Amino acid sequence: MARVKKKERQEMLLAQVREKPFLTDEELAKNLEVSVQTIRLDRLELGIPELRGRIRNMAEKAQNKVKSIQSGEVVGELIDLELGRSGISLLRITEDMVFAKTQIAKGHYMFSQADSLAIAIIDAPMAVTGVANVKYKVPVHVGEKLIAKAEVVKVRGNKFFVWVKTHNETQEVFRAKFIVVSWGDKLGGKTS
Amino acid sequence: MARVKKKERQEMLLAQVREKPFLTDEELAKNLEVSVQTIRLDRLELGIPELRGRIRNMAEKAQNKVKSIQSGEVVGELIDLELGRSGISLLRITEDMVFAKTQIAKGHYMFSQADSLAIAIIDAPMAVTGVANVKYKVPVHVGEKLIAKAEVVKVRGNKFFVWVKTHNETQEVFRAKFIVVSWGDKLGGKTS
Repeated sequence: MARVKKKERQEMLLAQVREKPFLTDEELAKNLEVSVQTIRLDRLELGIPELRGRIRNMAEKAQNKVKSIQSGEVVGELIDLELGRSGISLLRITEDMVFAKTQIAKGHYMFSQADSLAIAIIDAPMAVTGVANVKYKVPVHVGEKLIAKAEVVKVRGNKFFVWVKTHNETQEVFRAKFIVVSWGDKLGGKTS
Repeated sequence: MARVKKKERQEMLLAQVREKPFLTDEELAKNLEVSVQTIRLDRLELGIPELRGRIRNMAEKAQNKVKSIQSGEVVGELIDLELGRSGISLLRITEDMVFAKTQIAKGHYMFSQADSLAIAIIDAPMAVTGVANVKYKVPVHVGEKLIAKAEVVKVRGNKFFVWVKTHNETQEVFRAKFIVVSWGDKLGGKTS
């Protein structure tokens, strides 16, 4: 990419942060081919908080919306939520999450992140998992940041069909399809 | 059931303990329609350890056999293992495992128990989960003891098809089908 003017660069920065709010200053610098210092100055001028602040802001908004469970029960950090439609959570893989022999993350962590997110996006007072079909695509290791995106793809009465796709920094590592069953509202028990 | 003679009763006790080693003295007393005291005396005479001891004995033997992961990485307590074939684990549902609102056990605990057991029964130096299809049949609550039984039903090269069925004291609450992928031995990478 050729060196670009400041205005253009700042527009690209804004677009990148909007599209991928979890990029670090280092990653943004690499993408825009400028120094980390330049990214920091641009962020200051544009009023974009640093990564930690961006996540905190999003997380607070998202966590206040959860109805079906307590927001603290989401495994990982819930950072975006459109109730009844979609949600995003972030899980950092730490040393205690991997098998000692293989140093590969235990599959139940990716499952727990996806499962609890699938429940959290349901717009009902209570919900539990009914069915799950999951696929582990790539081994996950310590230090990876997993972004899980959940989406309600179909609703049949009180049954919600939720798809979750989980990426690390470079690729999809896991995907899952859930049927989540809700109750405690007017939809509950309407259909078989 | 009509009252039976001592010898007959003790034979029934032995049979029950062999078939269901996780029955408490109270449950055994109920099944045989005698007092708990009678069960204890019978156990002493027959040299059957109490429940805790029976589980400890089985667990030690089973845990020494695990190859694919560290035995402590099995979620719940591994209490029986026929390497390459089958295994049994026991998970007690405690307060920290249920959703606060519904008091229903979080689905990832049943998943974790089944998933780690499915891996533990594989007769290979290393193994990870590839695919999982799971079904939650009945909500699980605090205090329930979940017995998961895993069985290798098919092997294709380094892929192991493992079925897990999980019961509480009265019924099946969860079932799962896993494809576990192993490597690090002569089978590894032999087939697609």
